Amino acid sequence: MGAVCPAWQALSFLFMLLLTSSVAASSHCTTNRGPTVRNISDALQSNFGRRGLSHITIAGALSHGLKEVEVWLQTFSPGSRTPIHRHSCEEVFIILKGKGTLLLASSTFNYPGKPKEFPIYTNATFTIPVNDPHQIWNTSENEDLQLLAIISRPPVKIFIYDDWDMPHTAAKLNLPFISDEWYMPHSAAKLKFPFDWDEECYHQPKDEL
Amino acid sequence: MGAVCPAWQALSFLFMLLLTSSVAASSHCTTNRGPTVRNISDALQSNFGRRGLSHITIAGALSHGLKEVEVWLQTFSPGSRTPIHRHSCEEVFIILKGKGTLLLASSTFNYPGKPKEFPIYTNATFTIPVNDPHQIWNTSENEDLQLLAIISRPPVKIFIYDDWDMPHTAAKLNLPFISDEWYMPHSAAKLKFPFDWDEECYHQPKDEL
Repeated sequence: MGAVCPAWQALSFLFMLLLTSSVAASSHCTTNRGPTVRNISDALQSNFGRRGLSHITIAGALSHGLKEVEVWLQTFSPGSRTPIHRHSCEEVFIILKGKGTLLLASSTFNYPGKPKEFPIYTNATFTIPVNDPHQIWNTSENEDLQLLAIISRPPVKIFIYDDWDMPHTAAKLNLPFISDEWYMPHSAAKLKFPFDWDEECYHQPKDEL
Repeated sequence: MGAVCPAWQALSFLFMLLLTSSVAASSHCTTNRGPTVRNISDALQSNFGRRGLSHITIAGALSHGLKEVEVWLQTFSPGSRTPIHRHSCEEVFIILKGKGTLLLASSTFNYPGKPKEFPIYTNATFTIPVNDPHQIWNTSENEDLQLLAIISRPPVKIFIYDDWDMPHTAAKLNLPFISDEWYMPHSAAKLKFPFDWDEECYHQPKDEL
């Protein structure tokens, strides 16, 4: 037998390494997790440490492998509200029941300033422009406010304001809001920041198979 | 007065041209159209020429300037169904009322093949993986099937199959499905293909203002 060329050995080692890592990447990017059809009534709920909130991730990045949208079902008890916050993604709300107020400011100036107020009600819908600071209040004294929130680009990074006069640059990052954090393996939690655990999985637009 | 240099005239003309076109582009990219809070009950409905369908665009690309998500409310009369189709975007369904069947195949082979069948019901949710052929049936004899469909990357391009054995490459493009086509100016309709009327408006991810 002829002697094996060390360069070929090195090349074949590199080839195997590439093959292995691409297989690993592909399995890491699985996009169809858990049962295909799920009952929302059985979904996990959390309040993320906020009194008066119930949050259900109907479809999420960690729990169901979504890369481009997330859908949440949130319920606010009478008088409760979100913090004043912004995020650099599109957000669509659908009010399923109850009533309240949407407070919406702008990212045009250095700080939000006095927000516009809009009544919200059962069957109302509205979208929050990218990066515009906003807040949702349940203004009812005895009825829950229940809504669907749909966001793009999960997982969302939320910046929180103390008040409407706080400069945008001072708003505090609420460490990546993992709407389905119960699915996160402990070993992966907060490994690095910014949070780009699955950026290699993002789909490239592709219209033909 | 000194003579005006022709090169300066040309430069200033180009500068004005640039300024004008950037103002036009910026107004074209307005992302907050129509009233901020809208009542879904007042929204336009269409059936897009399909018997048994009622479609409402709760939040859309043309109607509300969305770039990354769209939200539809669709009602299927007893026995009606979607075509067998695929699209290269994520899709999340929430069944609001009624019952039916989800038929779901895969994009792994050259054609969809026999689909898996899943019962769907009030409060069910499911996601359709990018490019997987699927179909929704209202199997009830007397009850509507009503659902929310959330898609990424609007406007969606839908490829329709005659049956589950049709090759993926033969599926017919249903000319860009403009879920809110009543908002499209006639002068812009079908001007060119592929449809990229607002690609210059896509947001770049940006977490800091």
